[in-house]
Amino acid sequence: MKIAILSGGVGGAKLLLGASLAFEGAEITAIVNTGDDFRHLGLHVSPDVDTALYTLSGKANRAQGWGREGESWAFMTAVRSLGGEDWFNLGDGDLALHVLRSARLAGGEPLSAIIADFAQRWGIGPRVLPMSDDTVATIVETDEGVLEFQRYFVARRCDPRALAIRFEGAAAARPAPGTVEAIAAADVILIAPSNPLLSIDPILAVPGLRAALQAAGAPRIAVSPLIGGQAVKGPTAKLMAELGLPVNNQAIADHYAGLIDGLLVDEADARDALPIASHAVPTLMTDDASKAAVARAAVAFASRIDRR
Amino acid sequence: MKIAILSGGVGGAKLLLGASLAFEGAEITAIVNTGDDFRHLGLHVSPDVDTALYTLSGKANRAQGWGREGESWAFMTAVRSLGGEDWFNLGDGDLALHVLRSARLAGGEPLSAIIADFAQRWGIGPRVLPMSDDTVATIVETDEGVLEFQRYFVARRCDPRALAIRFEGAAAARPAPGTVEAIAAADVILIAPSNPLLSIDPILAVPGLRAALQAAGAPRIAVSPLIGGQAVKGPTAKLMAELGLPVNNQAIADHYAGLIDGLLVDEADARDALPIASHAVPTLMTDDASKAAVARAAVAFASRIDRR
Repeated sequence: MKIAILSGGVGGAKLLLGASLAFEGAEITAIVNTGDDFRHLGLHVSPDVDTALYTLSGKANRAQGWGREGESWAFMTAVRSLGGEDWFNLGDGDLALHVLRSARLAGGEPLSAIIADFAQRWGIGPRVLPMSDDTVATIVETDEGVLEFQRYFVARRCDPRALAIRFEGAAAARPAPGTVEAIAAADVILIAPSNPLLSIDPILAVPGLRAALQAAGAPRIAVSPLIGGQAVKGPTAKLMAELGLPVNNQAIADHYAGLIDGLLVDEADARDALPIASHAVPTLMTDDASKAAVARAAVAFASRIDRR
Repeated sequence: MKIAILSGGVGGAKLLLGASLAFEGAEITAIVNTGDDFRHLGLHVSPDVDTALYTLSGKANRAQGWGREGESWAFMTAVRSLGGEDWFNLGDGDLALHVLRSARLAGGEPLSAIIADFAQRWGIGPRVLPMSDDTVATIVETDEGVLEFQRYFVARRCDPRALAIRFEGAAAARPAPGTVEAIAAADVILIAPSNPLLSIDPILAVPGLRAALQAAGAPRIAVSPLIGGQAVKGPTAKLMAELGLPVNNQAIADHYAGLIDGLLVDEADARDALPIASHAVPTLMTDDASKAAVARAAVAFASRIDRR
């Protein structure tokens, strides 16, 4: 079985891990948002890709939701002592990904090749592909001005009121090698329960990826990021409300209209009237078992979808 | 009193610290070798400058001779797990200097301004100046081929037989702002007991610095790196022999001919017949007291030199 999964950061990585646990022999391809990527202290940081790498290699800090388990912070302490920018935390071990990636990018290697090598070094089963090797930058227009994603998300903790979100460079960005092929060859296509506006939309803003999803023959299932009408984590609900979307699964289904064939919702939202096929299961992913269960439910739901 | 000190890494930093302890009110300017500088994993590393910064701010690992006291190594462990180059150790805290310096250099700031800011942040009294803001690269021609300095020094542990040493870029390099002025204004000029061939010669290879030293009105004293006809540390003796120089203070004096007025030697070498004024004291610098004593002896010796 071939499974393609569009994924943002933490929530997406949980579904990736769940799928890899639930379907051991499957060919799983993660197509990961790079709209959050940015240069910080001269280093290329890829937060969502790295969360996927850490999660799938068993290195993730599960309590924190980002970075490495058992991380140390001598670098940040020294940066602070030198008056360097310290609003974005870079752990000592985490730095290796950023330093090596930056050096290899400067040497002309594409991001996708570098990530593939990292994943192979860490013995990661699923293919982890960035959505594009081209630069796409998620920009949030807010009532406090235009903010780059990490400035909005980390430095300002999503506090400013969002007025619009755009993805600079997306229109000209080419899908990374293997992404379109993975979507076309997939038996099941999943959209992870990541933030639709911040984490999935950048992927869909790459024209070739949107087209590939539209043209795909396999059933396409989104896992809703909402549970009981609330976002599990992060600014999804706040952002939907600010951008005039009702915070419910109808809005999620509308948002993905034409791109999905079904929406997997939480059992707390089983009664939502939706304009699309839906199925309700417990979608909160806490441990390995619940992650695998959600992946299994999404794939089972997909197998019941008739796309003819 | 104004003291200008030409310095390499460890031995030089000891004399710098000694001078700062011995002459509290003095204006001390260190002019530090950057021929060892190189780019590693995309980062600009300045080993001798950093040794000066760590030593003068009390952060140096005294036992090891380089890097920071209490350093951790999570970065290197992660680099190794990703197949990155690991022949040159970069500590977690140490990385802050390299990352911040690299980012600021890429932003167009000169090295000297960045180092001045670092020194100020760390409350360092002496001025720490790189010899030049231009790139000068120490290259060692060996019986195993041409090696960049760190490849020779760290990766190959000075094992190949040296045939010649050259300083790429030196002829066109301009002295860093303040260096020529510090030499011209100095009441005493010291050459630290660093490796003459690897650590002091790159400084002297910058035409403006050599000319400034030649034109200086103040007494110029070199502290010999030899004790009892042996180098205290590092490859000085091996290198002198390989390059056809006798390993003695006569050769050191000849090497600095026209650039110094006196050579401070160790008491074990007091009987050496030298073609230049000399004075013998214990020159082994182990603790703060012995470092200050050597600095004091060098300055006192200088005050007895009549340059008319």
